[in-house]
Amino acid sequence: MRRLLSMLLLLPLIANATPQIETWQTDNGLPVWFVPAMSVPMVDIELVFDAGSRRDATLSGIANFVSAMIEEGTAKWSADEVAQQFESLGAITGFNASRDMATVSLRSLAEENIVSQAVSQMAALLQGANFPPEALERVRQQILTSIEMGQQNPASILSDAFYRHVYADHPYATPVVGEASSVKALQQPQLLDFYRHHYSVSHGLMVIVGALSTAEAKRYANRLAAALPPGEPVSKLPVVKPLTVSQQHHIAHESSQSHLMWGMEGYARGDKDKFALYVGNHILGGGGLVSRISDEIREQRGLSYSAYSYFSPLELGGVFVMGLQTKNSQRAYALEVLAQTLNEFIEQGPTEAELTAAKKNISGSFPLKIDSNSDILSYVAVMAFYRFPINYLDTFTAQIEAVTLEQIRDAWQRRLKGRAALIVSVGAGQEFNDAQSTQRP
Amino acid sequence: MRRLLSMLLLLPLIANATPQIETWQTDNGLPVWFVPAMSVPMVDIELVFDAGSRRDATLSGIANFVSAMIEEGTAKWSADEVAQQFESLGAITGFNASRDMATVSLRSLAEENIVSQAVSQMAALLQGANFPPEALERVRQQILTSIEMGQQNPASILSDAFYRHVYADHPYATPVVGEASSVKALQQPQLLDFYRHHYSVSHGLMVIVGALSTAEAKRYANRLAAALPPGEPVSKLPVVKPLTVSQQHHIAHESSQSHLMWGMEGYARGDKDKFALYVGNHILGGGGLVSRISDEIREQRGLSYSAYSYFSPLELGGVFVMGLQTKNSQRAYALEVLAQTLNEFIEQGPTEAELTAAKKNISGSFPLKIDSNSDILSYVAVMAFYRFPINYLDTFTAQIEAVTLEQIRDAWQRRLKGRAALIVSVGAGQEFNDAQSTQRP
Repeated sequence: MRRLLSMLLLLPLIANATPQIETWQTDNGLPVWFVPAMSVPMVDIELVFDAGSRRDATLSGIANFVSAMIEEGTAKWSADEVAQQFESLGAITGFNASRDMATVSLRSLAEENIVSQAVSQMAALLQGANFPPEALERVRQQILTSIEMGQQNPASILSDAFYRHVYADHPYATPVVGEASSVKALQQPQLLDFYRHHYSVSHGLMVIVGALSTAEAKRYANRLAAALPPGEPVSKLPVVKPLTVSQQHHIAHESSQSHLMWGMEGYARGDKDKFALYVGNHILGGGGLVSRISDEIREQRGLSYSAYSYFSPLELGGVFVMGLQTKNSQRAYALEVLAQTLNEFIEQGPTEAELTAAKKNISGSFPLKIDSNSDILSYVAVMAFYRFPINYLDTFTAQIEAVTLEQIRDAWQRRLKGRAALIVSVGAGQEFNDAQSTQRP
Repeated sequence: MRRLLSMLLLLPLIANATPQIETWQTDNGLPVWFVPAMSVPMVDIELVFDAGSRRDATLSGIANFVSAMIEEGTAKWSADEVAQQFESLGAITGFNASRDMATVSLRSLAEENIVSQAVSQMAALLQGANFPPEALERVRQQILTSIEMGQQNPASILSDAFYRHVYADHPYATPVVGEASSVKALQQPQLLDFYRHHYSVSHGLMVIVGALSTAEAKRYANRLAAALPPGEPVSKLPVVKPLTVSQQHHIAHESSQSHLMWGMEGYARGDKDKFALYVGNHILGGGGLVSRISDEIREQRGLSYSAYSYFSPLELGGVFVMGLQTKNSQRAYALEVLAQTLNEFIEQGPTEAELTAAKKNISGSFPLKIDSNSDILSYVAVMAFYRFPINYLDTFTAQIEAVTLEQIRDAWQRRLKGRAALIVSVGAGQEFNDAQSTQRP
């Protein structure tokens, strides 16, 4: 501990070296992105697989179920023994599934005998995971419980309904956790099939951030990757079809506050308009209290404690969302204000002063958001999975600074003007568009 | 950005220097704890005040309300202008109140002209905050909304009820956010009084972590502290009276899952039994999946996805809590298992193997949990506020390693055996002790 603290606290300020992300493939062909980070004697390794819920196909919830089963035991070890092995090293593991990807992560001290054992254990687990029937039933119950609890929570009711409508028949439409009816029916052989197929070299990549030499990183990467089957070629996924008709949906739920999402088609990962849309959104509703939406909804009208907008890009498509919570009686009015604020922004674009402030803020706070190895790992995993250029982080600030007023106006008009919109609300009372129930100041 | 990434990624591994926390007082007498952290060009400053909800006295919710008002404007600046000033520097601010303390925090790049402006702006804000009436009404509505939403959420209903019963007539008993009736009645002069009295040198201290020389840190500390009034002597708070009679409370709430807390008196900050109780609890229910409670409740009986125990120490007292969520029909059975598991642990203590594993895990994972300046800041703020020895972090691992089986058994028997217990549950259906409703496997 003494040594660790020393390292954290007494590092000299080094200026102007070259940032360094190294990439290579393991002996069996898995791409690796490695960031040497020597300031803390610690190693983070993340395997990223094309094994998110977009791969569920007809088996809704299978990606999430599989992710939850990996740590549940092998032919040799029970779930308890697996946990104890990592625990005895002080290592921390994580398994997660989202729409595009699933991740397996391992954090350990960088001391050779510790990280080496942790990597070997993870390799043995990945290779041996056999989803024991008893654990499978327990995990199934946990997932069903979490689905059930989600159905009692207005925020998750809203988000599930929004994705369902905005992505319609695309695999992105269903919640990652899956439909209860499907989760109830999933069988062990189906889960094992999904696991072997998707947790494979052809569907994966590895990110390593930590206090290792390149030679060490290569050795551990090879050892861990050797646990993965080669896998088959990655199959193509359907494209996302744009919303063509505007829709409004209200879901009645006993709650004094209504939750709203107002959305339309956004952009996919890697879109060429990304920076113009992103900087514009910072001004419209992404920049916290100083953004226009917050000003109109919160400061000027007190309709909501927090109101915001964001783009949520996935690999095959994305959405633009404005959201807030407000009193049931103010739903219609709040939606009207959101729509007006957006339309005005699309028509006129930001002011010069707004653009300058937004650039200053994004550039200034960006470094403050990458202050730990976990942050570096998350950014690099996204870069690697979505095939961003390797100098993305280095050029980020320059890309932001280069955005012009004209580019923002142009991008917002081309991409968002007059497009079909989806409005979903959850709360007590009638449809939000029932004028009788509207309370205005 | 290029420079930042370089710094993050290419730092040499430095071994065996001496950890360094410097302490001094500002010119007007405010204690400062400073940790030079040169690996990221960034500065975190946190002011910590004895201004938590334990100081609410008869004005429930005032500490939280005051904390939310500071950024809402001065005679010269509106809330919007305050936000824009920090935003234009890319600086990030935070205001928070908990039971023991309230904090004001500022994160900025370490570049001299940026951190200097950010500190000056924060000083001007602290000195000039005047809680404008219009903003005050808006914030009041936000707080009332969050109280109302808390009353619809089983987890916060449970936690509020638990604290109310366990701390009875002590100031720790009321929720930090306050009672709605009190928040409705609070007046601007009361809030300003509380602010001037508690956000003062006599009630405060400052923690700085970042890429500054000691001379720079002293300069900024002086500038920021100069914004604070000297303050009056800190008044004594009542001691926490131990629970003397066991109690059970059930709160009916429409939810398919019940939330339970099973608690008793724990330890206050700085308690001499702390390490024996802490290591013991890691084995009983604090160590995640490998702990006894998780094993009994989750692995062996599938009663809950997660079941755990923890000590929650405050300055004047503390609680020990076991908690879980389970089906309404399994409440009584789950409580029975918790009680048995605890009693067995108190009677027999941990095994040698459990103790070895727990020490390995706590020592091994401790460094993995301090991997960013934010983490260092949080630890040091706690150390400073509760007057821990300055070498606390350096000796933490040694203190853990020194705990013996005998000390754990002894401490748990002296402190927890046969003590009055408080059980609170929230969920649908009858009292949990109605045997009819109990479902056992």
